[in-house]
Amino acid sequence: MEDLPENHEQVAGNGLLHRRMFLAGTAAAVGTSVAPSGVSAAPLPVESWMKVPGAGFNGYGQPSKFEEKVARTWASAPGTTGTGSSRTPHQSLDGMITPSGLHYERSHSGIPDINPDAHRLVVHGLVKRPLVFTLDDLSRYPMQSRIAFVECAGNSGAMFQKQPAQANIQAIHGLLSCSEWTGVKLSVLLDDAGIDPSAKWVLAEGADAAGMSRSFPIEKAMDDAMVALYQNGERVRPSNGYPVRLLLPGFEGNMNVKWLRRIKLTEGPTMTKDETSKYTILLPTGKSLQFVFPLEAKSVITHPSPGLTMRGPGLYEISGVAWSGYGKIAKVEVSADGGKSWGVAALQEPVLSKALTRFRMPWRWDGAPVTLQSRSTDETGYVQPDRAQLIALRGDRGNYHNNMITSWGVSDKGEVKHVYA
Amino acid sequence: MEDLPENHEQVAGNGLLHRRMFLAGTAAAVGTSVAPSGVSAAPLPVESWMKVPGAGFNGYGQPSKFEEKVARTWASAPGTTGTGSSRTPHQSLDGMITPSGLHYERSHSGIPDINPDAHRLVVHGLVKRPLVFTLDDLSRYPMQSRIAFVECAGNSGAMFQKQPAQANIQAIHGLLSCSEWTGVKLSVLLDDAGIDPSAKWVLAEGADAAGMSRSFPIEKAMDDAMVALYQNGERVRPSNGYPVRLLLPGFEGNMNVKWLRRIKLTEGPTMTKDETSKYTILLPTGKSLQFVFPLEAKSVITHPSPGLTMRGPGLYEISGVAWSGYGKIAKVEVSADGGKSWGVAALQEPVLSKALTRFRMPWRWDGAPVTLQSRSTDETGYVQPDRAQLIALRGDRGNYHNNMITSWGVSDKGEVKHVYA
Repeated sequence: MEDLPENHEQVAGNGLLHRRMFLAGTAAAVGTSVAPSGVSAAPLPVESWMKVPGAGFNGYGQPSKFEEKVARTWASAPGTTGTGSSRTPHQSLDGMITPSGLHYERSHSGIPDINPDAHRLVVHGLVKRPLVFTLDDLSRYPMQSRIAFVECAGNSGAMFQKQPAQANIQAIHGLLSCSEWTGVKLSVLLDDAGIDPSAKWVLAEGADAAGMSRSFPIEKAMDDAMVALYQNGERVRPSNGYPVRLLLPGFEGNMNVKWLRRIKLTEGPTMTKDETSKYTILLPTGKSLQFVFPLEAKSVITHPSPGLTMRGPGLYEISGVAWSGYGKIAKVEVSADGGKSWGVAALQEPVLSKALTRFRMPWRWDGAPVTLQSRSTDETGYVQPDRAQLIALRGDRGNYHNNMITSWGVSDKGEVKHVYA
Repeated sequence: MEDLPENHEQVAGNGLLHRRMFLAGTAAAVGTSVAPSGVSAAPLPVESWMKVPGAGFNGYGQPSKFEEKVARTWASAPGTTGTGSSRTPHQSLDGMITPSGLHYERSHSGIPDINPDAHRLVVHGLVKRPLVFTLDDLSRYPMQSRIAFVECAGNSGAMFQKQPAQANIQAIHGLLSCSEWTGVKLSVLLDDAGIDPSAKWVLAEGADAAGMSRSFPIEKAMDDAMVALYQNGERVRPSNGYPVRLLLPGFEGNMNVKWLRRIKLTEGPTMTKDETSKYTILLPTGKSLQFVFPLEAKSVITHPSPGLTMRGPGLYEISGVAWSGYGKIAKVEVSADGGKSWGVAALQEPVLSKALTRFRMPWRWDGAPVTLQSRSTDETGYVQPDRAQLIALRGDRGNYHNNMITSWGVSDKGEVKHVYA
């Protein structure tokens, strides 16, 4: 091992360095250069775009044409155009927020083209007085904002396969995104309607052609459920439920019902199609777990990840996202030797409950093959399981709630592949 | 005054209520209904969009067609298409994040169409070894993320006019936005280049046709300056500096140099065009203040604001944004009687340094004409001045750093107008 300066202290095998390198005020600790192209002898060329005036203004901006490959990928069920999902390209993103144009979608019968003036939200069932809300009505209520992830219960299901899917992070983990959501607390609307004491569950139904609907306990409604009108500052996007969606922070993605048209208070669960035929957890015994709503703590390394080739030995940043449906992320550990040793990553502030948390870890790669992993612990003390642990618990015939540790293998050529370790 | 329940306690004149109504766990305090359309006797109609499958997937999503009026407005200097500014429609937004498509722009010679593969960032001047960085080089460095506002020094300049501009918040205060930015600390790059002890200032230059450039003290470079590659998760938008911009949190907007191509360490300020002929603060004496970089604490009510007509007496939420270039917002007060009495608004967590902070205040409007104001205090104890205080200090012949209290007059018809109070 080379003689590292004090602040380059190695904390785990294969070159993982102490996270203090990233902490505020210790920037100087980086010390040696990462990889600048070197000293410029000639003056910097004046490129063509400095010689003529640039483009004018527009009402709604778009990404650079040079970023057009940064896009969602999607698959639709046979015979449909809108039943399926599109996925967020995490390999091209950094930070905590997912831009709304790249937020993942899961639709059960396409994206409805809803006229907000005609849209209504009904609150009925076991209430003292049923209520019908226009969008204007909803806008009169006190609002709240929170940054929250939404993840499809089927995200990462490919990792139950016997062999590691030769796919990138977008294909494996792309049914995950994070936005700032603003809206009305569902509890405020229910209080206005008056809750009958017999009401124990809530049905939420969307205004898509599938009438997608799910049930959840009223405790969630009175806790942190939100009727969301805004996403990342502007009105919710059509693919994410325009003009209004339900947000159940930390719960399975499709429970955050898009195009929300109906909230019904009931005595028990409604047993809708999407909570009986789907979105249940098949166990090795052949029985299924139903109504397991919060998504367990999870993490994945976004850089490096498959498709991003390393440019030779040297200092790199390992970066990724961690999240838990049970609260805040307390710790993320990174391994560069397939789980033999672990170092603690730096967490980007602010660390928010039920939101993506970006983690970062300095790494000096010596050019030999390695296996990279990340492992998150949430504030309840729950630790993300490895593949063997999750399969021992739940078998490998299911599709949902796959939160096992992801392993990326780096070859001596710097190529990154999905592996099992 | 009507007999209010305990949790509807009035805290200031003309119906301002206690912010506890908005706090977590007290949702029930809202009590009476805001304005639902009432009980539905007939079943909810099944709208046309529930009868046919919806639209399919796409790579990069857009807002609903019903939101096309939510757009930036802009003005260009005569004879140009790209010298001027476009403004954020705060009257239509909520939360803390500005969607990137609506982030304000200020360009001095249009938006350059930069090929990132050809773009270079040079660090030179009083350094031990000049460095030239490609985008790939920059991506190797440790990153950090932060949510930060950017505000043009000329934002709100219209409020120096003798008569209140009959314009909306977008026209008056639209040169203000807030994003999550991710990039490399400038101090890390400077450490790599090696700082000569004689270096006291920094010049930053953009790759637009104007070669827009500004100077700032090296202390800012070593504190929280960032070379930003990502905005709200994806690569910075062209209008905001693609492929790389400088972020100087809290400093005047144009110092956050877009399309960053050059960082030069110098002994003193460079005295560029944009820090001598412009962006100085003209005092009543005829002298100008130069190099006043951080933007002082400020706030403005976004809802209600001009163009948003109130629908009769009742309960409303007053909502707005507050920010300071000196740190966190400590307090926002709201007045509904033109500054005679003030109530403390609720601040949306997380409250972040040099970021927009959303404030909210419940308000029972009795239908009589009122004047709404907000006043922010930052963590240094600085209090946003009223119009008379700011003019006493700085006169009314300048254009920059106008952080005076904004007053919205509400008529008995519910119309909202910009007034002086």
